[in-house]
Amino acid sequence: MLESLDQIGEREILNRLKKFMPVGQIEDDTAQLNPFGKEILINTDVLVDGVHFSNETTSAEDIGWRAVATNISDLAASGVDQILGITVGLIAPPKTNWAWVNGVYKGINKALEKFGGKLIGGDCSCGNQKVLAITAIGTVGQLRLHRGNALDGDFLVASGPHGLSRLGLALLLNDPLTKNNEITYHLKSKAIQTHQRPIPPLKALQALLNCKPKDLPWRAAGTDSSDGLLEALHNLCSSSNCQAIIDPKNLPKDKNWPIGSQWDSWCLNGGEDFELILSLPPSWAQSLVKTLPSSQIIGIMQSGSPKIIWKDGKEIEKNHLLEFKHF
Amino acid sequence: MLESLDQIGEREILNRLKKFMPVGQIEDDTAQLNPFGKEILINTDVLVDGVHFSNETTSAEDIGWRAVATNISDLAASGVDQILGITVGLIAPPKTNWAWVNGVYKGINKALEKFGGKLIGGDCSCGNQKVLAITAIGTVGQLRLHRGNALDGDFLVASGPHGLSRLGLALLLNDPLTKNNEITYHLKSKAIQTHQRPIPPLKALQALLNCKPKDLPWRAAGTDSSDGLLEALHNLCSSSNCQAIIDPKNLPKDKNWPIGSQWDSWCLNGGEDFELILSLPPSWAQSLVKTLPSSQIIGIMQSGSPKIIWKDGKEIEKNHLLEFKHF
Repeated sequence: MLESLDQIGEREILNRLKKFMPVGQIEDDTAQLNPFGKEILINTDVLVDGVHFSNETTSAEDIGWRAVATNISDLAASGVDQILGITVGLIAPPKTNWAWVNGVYKGINKALEKFGGKLIGGDCSCGNQKVLAITAIGTVGQLRLHRGNALDGDFLVASGPHGLSRLGLALLLNDPLTKNNEITYHLKSKAIQTHQRPIPPLKALQALLNCKPKDLPWRAAGTDSSDGLLEALHNLCSSSNCQAIIDPKNLPKDKNWPIGSQWDSWCLNGGEDFELILSLPPSWAQSLVKTLPSSQIIGIMQSGSPKIIWKDGKEIEKNHLLEFKHF
Repeated sequence: MLESLDQIGEREILNRLKKFMPVGQIEDDTAQLNPFGKEILINTDVLVDGVHFSNETTSAEDIGWRAVATNISDLAASGVDQILGITVGLIAPPKTNWAWVNGVYKGINKALEKFGGKLIGGDCSCGNQKVLAITAIGTVGQLRLHRGNALDGDFLVASGPHGLSRLGLALLLNDPLTKNNEITYHLKSKAIQTHQRPIPPLKALQALLNCKPKDLPWRAAGTDSSDGLLEALHNLCSSSNCQAIIDPKNLPKDKNWPIGSQWDSWCLNGGEDFELILSLPPSWAQSLVKTLPSSQIIGIMQSGSPKIIWKDGKEIEKNHLLEFKHF
């Protein structure tokens, strides 16, 4: 019992916390309640200065925006049809400028204007470090997406390209890896925009709902890729007890994405991508990629103990499996 | 705009935040939504190490319990009839022992078993300082209590004694003020219990609902006294645009509470009392004090610009008006 959190690691911490919440959000990112026989989705995220944002790369308004986008992305990955509202718990050191707090709330409200929902309340307190704890609440539409709904034979679909946010961060930090002539001006500006003002995948969800072949039931598995593409696939596999077979030729990359292992790694594991990763019956998957130009089929699901493998049968390289670390 | 938060002060911070949440929790402590034409209450509270709890006085289990009790107390002060669930955002330094986290979640679940509701999810991250951000969700019963519903001529009722939690804290910190022969063993143990394992006023709310005279409509004002009795009265006055006239002979004290200005001050301003402070039509107030032995009438409401005055017309002393400072 005297192990420290960094010795245990994030995945094991979440695993141990599961016993405290038998029907909880830990497994599926979003919690749910059925107060009047109708389903309500609830999602809580914490953003910590130095872990999830920093003054170097993120303005106060961007932090507020990002906090809302992160949360709504989780609701989208559960099938939200209406975002009702959010509450905000804000902690800041006493010497923080009011301008920073004002900026955060401005960013929150700008994101809500864009994506729906209202700021309905919260709490604030002083502390040593800036923290935002956001809880978003919404209702569920026709399709309740779960991580655990994938089946053998499903196609895996990414709703958009991955790695852009990671590249945006690297550009903002003047990372030497970005001194690369292959990075077009257009890609740079898109990457920075994606990092600073991420867009939750509400349009992708809408496309998914609109394009379902009539003969199929409302069954699909999904999650968002806020912790990276591989982490999202890992979660689908683990919750659905399936194996994901990924085609390395079909990684979801921007059309101007450079070639190389570093770039593949950012695509697979960059994090903060806020796209949907879906496991769908083949005909639904094919219908989606026709409807949603940014989406693409990246692999298939098969029965077997949870893991991610390349199409040629090789295991995914260890350095690609580093999880997005919060501890 | 370059003022810092400690220069502005908590009340002004909350005031400025109001513009971002026109229908928000800031005014009434609890937010509400009407997703299906039925009202849902939502409350978010943050608890910060060194501000709201410390290792010296609060075990991990007590912190978890307190976090739940604080939140449910706010729901009770809004008229909750069913606690649906809570989400927990937990932040802790990487070197924190797992035993501490385990203890917090144990305390959370113990409190939920006692008061109702389930732990439905959350998030966790590392940070420099321990933080708990809790959001509780519930449904509203027959009576939606608001701070702003008080009317001229109402009686003011406290659902129980005040100052016990403050005394408990002083005892745990070996404050010299507690070296007082007047403090009975029974009072000591009750005070420490109240500080470590506070009970949200759900029974008081039930008594209030049960004892309403039939001829009265469902109109009452209320808040909880988690930030102290005077702060609760201030909030009722300010939201209802009324003046509270308090009888110093009828302060809500434990029957063994010592006499003296320090003790009056703890009663008025100790904080973390988790009782209901209600503004009720006289016949309802009289009915309540008969039904709920711990409750007592402490004054009346009258029209006028918001303030709190003693029965003899004197203003409340300045040193009693120190707010519970979070900044």
